[in-house]
Amino acid sequence: MKWPTFSLPEPEPGWVWLTGAGPGDPGLLTLHALNGIRNADVIVHDTLVSNEILSLAAAGCEIIHAGKRGGKPSPRQPDISARLVSLARAKRRVIRLKGGDPFVFGRGGEEALALVAAGVPFRIVPGISAGIGGLAHAGIPLTHRDVNSVVTFLTGHGASGDVPDDINWPALAASSPVLVIYMALKQLAVIQARLLAAGRSPDEPVAIVSKATRAEEIVLETDLGSCVDDMLAETIEPPAIVVVGEIVRLRAGLDWVGAMAGRSLLPDPPGTRSFRRAG
Amino acid sequence: MKWPTFSLPEPEPGWVWLTGAGPGDPGLLTLHALNGIRNADVIVHDTLVSNEILSLAAAGCEIIHAGKRGGKPSPRQPDISARLVSLARAKRRVIRLKGGDPFVFGRGGEEALALVAAGVPFRIVPGISAGIGGLAHAGIPLTHRDVNSVVTFLTGHGASGDVPDDINWPALAASSPVLVIYMALKQLAVIQARLLAAGRSPDEPVAIVSKATRAEEIVLETDLGSCVDDMLAETIEPPAIVVVGEIVRLRAGLDWVGAMAGRSLLPDPPGTRSFRRAG
Repeated sequence: MKWPTFSLPEPEPGWVWLTGAGPGDPGLLTLHALNGIRNADVIVHDTLVSNEILSLAAAGCEIIHAGKRGGKPSPRQPDISARLVSLARAKRRVIRLKGGDPFVFGRGGEEALALVAAGVPFRIVPGISAGIGGLAHAGIPLTHRDVNSVVTFLTGHGASGDVPDDINWPALAASSPVLVIYMALKQLAVIQARLLAAGRSPDEPVAIVSKATRAEEIVLETDLGSCVDDMLAETIEPPAIVVVGEIVRLRAGLDWVGAMAGRSLLPDPPGTRSFRRAG
Repeated sequence: MKWPTFSLPEPEPGWVWLTGAGPGDPGLLTLHALNGIRNADVIVHDTLVSNEILSLAAAGCEIIHAGKRGGKPSPRQPDISARLVSLARAKRRVIRLKGGDPFVFGRGGEEALALVAAGVPFRIVPGISAGIGGLAHAGIPLTHRDVNSVVTFLTGHGASGDVPDDINWPALAASSPVLVIYMALKQLAVIQARLLAAGRSPDEPVAIVSKATRAEEIVLETDLGSCVDDMLAETIEPPAIVVVGEIVRLRAGLDWVGAMAGRSLLPDPPGTRSFRRAG
């Protein structure tokens, strides 16, 4: 591609850029993120950052993996924060690279507060979150005027690894026609049970989008009653986004990646018609 | 900046790319968006797309404004869709450029379905939504493990221009500790009244972020009880994002743009402590 001449802030020695890498496709990096990656002395990344993106780093850049790998547990969050502080104090240009957006269930706020406590200057570089851009790639719009004025994001596991205990499921089920659930695979049976108990219909459409925007992307269309069985019947691996709501039916019209591979799209999918709200 | 050599899909004649331009800062464009803009024959943009971004187009590119301008009303949605179809049928490379993300209250789904109905091939290029990236720029993380496992996005006006009539305010107030409201300025008094009636506290922190990520960005920190008066006392112009929730207190620690201008940050802002959930 032709690049413009362009002035962007450069990473400076002793700074940390808390940077979102987006869902995987390098084309979904922001210009700030690419600029950071190209000019970093050291990149500290989590497991969700693709090799294709890491390969954009300059030849001399040190690459540090700070995520779960193989059977080994993840480094503890305070250890990652301490590492960022010590790299910055060594006057290196530090890019902390996280999948998606650092502030969407990404613990970027905790890392930033640790930098503040240590007096390390930082910049926040937002990224495309899989719950928006990954779904768009799968042909599922987050909102449609005929379907929803409200959309809710939640995480499938909290600090303990269990479903967070501070979720008001009946209110959630009644308030949001569309639910976008991060890190939901492990707890999907619990989430399914809570939503059904709170009055959501087993017939409500559900999509599970695994490895969104990557070559290995899988999109499983199912419904709330069958989603756990269907997930187990297929090989669906994390990272994955689960979306619950009539909006999923729009994929019959909007699966543009499928259309490129020959799928016929329906200009008037059922999601745009009668359904107005849940709860 | 140094650009890598890089292979990205090019816009093709007869195609429409429904593209998010992000909140305003050109550095928050994605590589796909920049590539589309640089190689477009024609760009059809809405009012929220900044001139700085439009100036990245190639010299011969036709720029069509399809948004509200001055006192004139916006073009009707079906007219915009018909324009996109006719440009594509003329075998032009069409970039439909929308502020933020095309699928987050952006009517991108409706435009895409119109393209499908006309047999026009399209690609969806997600963008950084102001409700995530604009807040991050203002130092407000969307989530923090100690504050919220849930965050809800809603729009302040529906098709009629009024607050959408399908919102279950009591359930919304009880389910989501953090509410991110798009296009909220005009209806802020109604939204405030509904949230207070639904049991949210007048002391709950609120931030209004106007023209997020641009040089003219204004961030007004207020609370639910005072937000309408405070908005009227300042000159707050659209586009703006309103965020309601304890997460706003984290800005005392995370206002990195303010820190660059000399603001002292608090490493342990009150939002990270006692508060667990609303409703």
